[in-house]
Amino acid sequence: MKKVRFGVVGIGSMGTMHITNLQCRVPNAEVIAVCARTLSRVKEVQEKFGIPHGYTDYDEMLKNPDIDAIVIATGADAHKEQCIKASQANKHIFCEKPLAKSVEDCKEIEAEVAKNEGKLFTVGFMRRFDPSYAEAMRKIRAGEIGAPILFRGVSLDPASVLDAHLEGVKKGIYVPWFIEMGSHDTDLARWFLRGEPVECFATGGAYVCKGLADYDDYDNGFSLTKFDNQTTAYIQVGRTGTCSHVESEIVGTCGTLRINSVPRKNYISQFTGKGVLEECQESFLERWGTAFYNEMENFTNCILENRQPEITAKDGTGSLEFCLKLHDAYLAGKK
Amino acid sequence: MKKVRFGVVGIGSMGTMHITNLQCRVPNAEVIAVCARTLSRVKEVQEKFGIPHGYTDYDEMLKNPDIDAIVIATGADAHKEQCIKASQANKHIFCEKPLAKSVEDCKEIEAEVAKNEGKLFTVGFMRRFDPSYAEAMRKIRAGEIGAPILFRGVSLDPASVLDAHLEGVKKGIYVPWFIEMGSHDTDLARWFLRGEPVECFATGGAYVCKGLADYDDYDNGFSLTKFDNQTTAYIQVGRTGTCSHVESEIVGTCGTLRINSVPRKNYISQFTGKGVLEECQESFLERWGTAFYNEMENFTNCILENRQPEITAKDGTGSLEFCLKLHDAYLAGKK
Amino acid sequence: MKKVRFGVVGIGSMGTMHITNLQCRVPNAEVIAVCARTLSRVKEVQEKFGIPHGYTDYDEMLKNPDIDAIVIATGADAHKEQCIKASQANKHIFCEKPLAKSVEDCKEIEAEVAKNEGKLFTVGFMRRFDPSYAEAMRKIRAGEIGAPILFRGVSLDPASVLDAHLEGVKKGIYVPWFIEMGSHDTDLARWFLRGEPVECFATGGAYVCKGLADYDDYDNGFSLTKFDNQTTAYIQVGRTGTCSHVESEIVGTCGTLRINSVPRKNYISQFTGKGVLEECQESFLERWGTAFYNEMENFTNCILENRQPEITAKDGTGSLEFCLKLHDAYLAGKK
Amino acid sequence: MKKVRFGVVGIGSMGTMHITNLQCRVPNAEVIAVCARTLSRVKEVQEKFGIPHGYTDYDEMLKNPDIDAIVIATGADAHKEQCIKASQANKHIFCEKPLAKSVEDCKEIEAEVAKNEGKLFTVGFMRRFDPSYAEAMRKIRAGEIGAPILFRGVSLDPASVLDAHLEGVKKGIYVPWFIEMGSHDTDLARWFLRGEPVECFATGGAYVCKGLADYDDYDNGFSLTKFDNQTTAYIQVGRTGTCSHVESEIVGTCGTLRINSVPRKNYISQFTGKGVLEECQESFLERWGTAFYNEMENFTNCILENRQPEITAKDGTGSLEFCLKLHDAYLAGKK
Repeated sequence: MKKVRFGVVGIGSMGTMHITNLQCRVPNAEVIAVCARTLSRVKEVQEKFGIPHGYTDYDEMLKNPDIDAIVIATGADAHKEQCIKASQANKHIFCEKPLAKSVEDCKEIEAEVAKNEGKLFTVGFMRRFDPSYAEAMRKIRAGEIGAPILFRGVSLDPASVLDAHLEGVKKGIYVPWFIEMGSHDTDLARWFLRGEPVECFATGGAYVCKGLADYDDYDNGFSLTKFDNQTTAYIQVGRTGTCSHVESEIVGTCGTLRINSVPRKNYISQFTGKGVLEECQESFLERWGTAFYNEMENFTNCILENRQPEITAKDGTGSLEFCLKLHDAYLAGKK
Repeated sequence: MKKVRFGVVGIGSMGTMHITNLQCRVPNAEVIAVCARTLSRVKEVQEKFGIPHGYTDYDEMLKNPDIDAIVIATGADAHKEQCIKASQANKHIFCEKPLAKSVEDCKEIEAEVAKNEGKLFTVGFMRRFDPSYAEAMRKIRAGEIGAPILFRGVSLDPASVLDAHLEGVKKGIYVPWFIEMGSHDTDLARWFLRGEPVECFATGGAYVCKGLADYDDYDNGFSLTKFDNQTTAYIQVGRTGTCSHVESEIVGTCGTLRINSVPRKNYISQFTGKGVLEECQESFLERWGTAFYNEMENFTNCILENRQPEITAKDGTGSLEFCLKLHDAYLAGKK
Repeated sequence: MKKVRFGVVGIGSMGTMHITNLQCRVPNAEVIAVCARTLSRVKEVQEKFGIPHGYTDYDEMLKNPDIDAIVIATGADAHKEQCIKASQANKHIFCEKPLAKSVEDCKEIEAEVAKNEGKLFTVGFMRRFDPSYAEAMRKIRAGEIGAPILFRGVSLDPASVLDAHLEGVKKGIYVPWFIEMGSHDTDLARWFLRGEPVECFATGGAYVCKGLADYDDYDNGFSLTKFDNQTTAYIQVGRTGTCSHVESEIVGTCGTLRINSVPRKNYISQFTGKGVLEECQESFLERWGTAFYNEMENFTNCILENRQPEITAKDGTGSLEFCLKLHDAYLAGKK
Repeated sequence: MKKVRFGVVGIGSMGTMHITNLQCRVPNAEVIAVCARTLSRVKEVQEKFGIPHGYTDYDEMLKNPDIDAIVIATGADAHKEQCIKASQANKHIFCEKPLAKSVEDCKEIEAEVAKNEGKLFTVGFMRRFDPSYAEAMRKIRAGEIGAPILFRGVSLDPASVLDAHLEGVKKGIYVPWFIEMGSHDTDLARWFLRGEPVECFATGGAYVCKGLADYDDYDNGFSLTKFDNQTTAYIQVGRTGTCSHVESEIVGTCGTLRINSVPRKNYISQFTGKGVLEECQESFLERWGTAFYNEMENFTNCILENRQPEITAKDGTGSLEFCLKLHDAYLAGKK
């Protein structure tokens, strides 16, 4: 069986998850190299997953001719340089979202990877690989809801992680929520609506974690966006949910699809004196484990079958551009 | 507009509810007479509802030639005599369930009302008039689930009324739960399955209100019954529910209908830190108000259009016979 | 028992429904007069409901000294004059929504009824009387979701009535949907959020019934509104629903309430080869019958107990002002 | 990292799934040997999963001293001999359900493995490892529903596989449904109720696939069982479901847990002209993939930590004994 040989840069929680999927679960994939700043951490991961090559120098890893594809799982700051170098080294590239920190950087990446002939490039918008989202798109393409006219995306983090977030904001680690969490919903909006945003209006505030306001950040953002094809996107992001809740809706001219309206944690319904209770999803991975796996399986198969992934660098640019519009609309509304 | 003129005997909670529906809501009905033991109570109801005639003597009421139909809303003990007399007085008759206390008494009623030519007789199995049950039957008759093979009926009272119940049992007011609550489920089983019970098996116990065991009573009863047409009924009655919960299911050879699986009190879903909560039905009337209204509207219309109600005296007998079988099976299992 | 004596003007579907509730169901109410343009229709309603006085001249009806309260159930065009005259005749007044056709007219009504000392005035925002909405407000006032920050209101008519609507629009009978249907959601937004709209953004289009575009109308409208107290309202109105669907959500700082997310028609869940199916609400009255009853019961009791209804003329003005803002925002977006 | 080294006998769908989990997903497990009748098939599996040792002779495999544990994934006919031999070879043993074909065989296994000191033995009742079932048990142990009094288990296969089943029955491959599918529900009943069955009553029939009746088999079976601790089990098995549906309920004295009442396939709710639709689980693995993984992970960890798995040989015996009682009760009822 032919296997795609991967090199992974970045071994935080996202990098480790991709390594786990590629090395232990996706049949046609193997991770043969890993790169991060701290040597001890590199060695630890090598040993845990049986990865032959370890690097602290990204350029060195790119020189390894056995590596077919690079997975970039570092912070957004590093993406532009890492994408461009991997492209110049003629590797297939998977880059985590957001593609970069600015639209200009995204466009530089786009230009560079366009030159990387015969090699694939994709961005980690994993929600598209969740079975429910994939099935929703299949139904839409089959005409089951007519023409989509509204995408509604709600992405909420539980309030329990709010204080930790403020600390991150103070240290400059985190970007505002319309950009961080919103990157998924902006991608879904563009994917389902097949159009581009032309005008955004946004409201919201730092209602619970008031300290966020000092950093032009917020714990709840609400937005409405007009698209160039007469469709509309309502995107709501928040950090004060009662659980981890990502809900999406696509309203069509003759039917509607809702995904995860009730974010059930499991299959239990509990009859209590207060009513019937369904416990909710608490964490990110609990909800998206399958999507992350499918994402890597799909990328591996695209490489083996030499077909371009549906998600392109242009989608990375489009999503970021939309996120920044939402954030700017929010700031404009605050004045 | 021609109106049916009713006389009502028994003005407890059931009698008062029937009077309210007949006098204030059903367009073609009016209550012109009411009868109960206590004169002051009779006068009070007359005044409240504008009822011209009041009686403390049932025989006197029956002599009133303006009364077209009698509603019997007294306790089961009184039903036989009241049915027979009303039949002999040539009135249309609506009798509350259970039809009587013994199968023999039921059969005497059946025999008598058979002679009451041109007059209608029916029993208060109101669940059949609930919109969901009526629609379920419509779907079944339309073949949407194929041939029914299983009826599952679960009828639970909330634990909050358990102590009051034990007091009633001690005073001899209440009959065991397979007979009292079960009368509805036994009727539904016969209605949906179109057959008769031939063999019952029952278990259960006085798990929470242990005092009930001294009276051959129980707070939970579970039963399985084989019908003469190869179908089956599972009937579960209980007094320790977290709410007032009546759930029914009809399994067919190619589809299944469930009614009120989640006994939602209203249209609210509440997202809380413990999960998504739906509050539940707390009381009898909250769930069945429409059914009680439809029941009286239907009876009034049957009289006006001179058509026999679907529920006959035989259904009253059939339901009681089945209830007693379940209770006997429970007692047999305890030995 | 003291009864409030009502005179009703307008006997279309709304007027007839109010008469039915007042005359046949609300214990302390009676309809003693009815007024409409067509004499034969007035006589018909008088006979059907046993109403002693019939009028084709509204001024004549107002001269009847036995009438305590007027219910105005005519079209919005007539409201201003009818409210002012009833106020000058010193009657209690219930006026259907929308209060008038322009904010100026609303304010004239406000000014006039303010002079009608000792008499009550209210507007027909019946959703507030639906048990689920009333309970939602109770929970919010009890602090169960913290401070409300978002109201989301979705009101959809089924596509089945779309052609009839276009005909009405052509004849000038109907007002655009943000104004007609939106009047309820704008009232709810103001009620739940306790603020006033300051800036609106709207999109949408005539996606299915393209003819509507010629009349500045649309079959779907989406809007986001910033309130003066840092809260937000998302209001979506449509005429292309798969059923009659009114859904509301109130997001608070520590909890969320959703009302009627799944617009179940009854208590049935049907297991079919395609999945589990829950049939949906098809009509307006199927959903809101209890709310309309409660509305009239509440108004009757307010009169008897001499307490001002929660909904004031100012709410009528506020709702209309908001509706017009939404419609204007929609038109602005189209340019 | 210390790994448990497995040998697997039987490489049909179950064996292959266990190999996949052990070899590719459970971190501390590796499959070093595989055994089946057909050499070519053995080699194929060895190659696919990188398994060093392949056997067609079970005795030979048992002689391999590097094997720590045996997974028996053959048909029930073979279990007794394979368990006993593996036990005599001093291996840890995981045996698929049902443990054997008769209670006597089960007891022989029990006796033999009792002698296999220091080694673990368990049976494949994987439902206990499904996150929802595990969480339900956790809630019960925490007292959230009081004392369990009823277990209701419904296990339905979709009608689509009914014809294939009849063919299998004709060839003698399949055992009746109360024994095959029922083995899971009988185990769950014993697990949740902590008691043993003392009396069973069963009904049902070959309603759709009438040919099954010739083989004392049926497409629907309904049963009620009295337990020795005053609790009750309702077990329903069927082959005519609209989907693959396993639902369980545990009724306690002060609360109730339901698992998978609506067997949703994914997170989508589709609004259609017929109502709101939720598609259902179609296949076995779609529902239980996580449970099968957890089962193997747990067995591996039990071996590494030298602790006895919760499921013992006695549970295998108890489940089979209960299944046979149900099947006998069904046959008795048919006479």
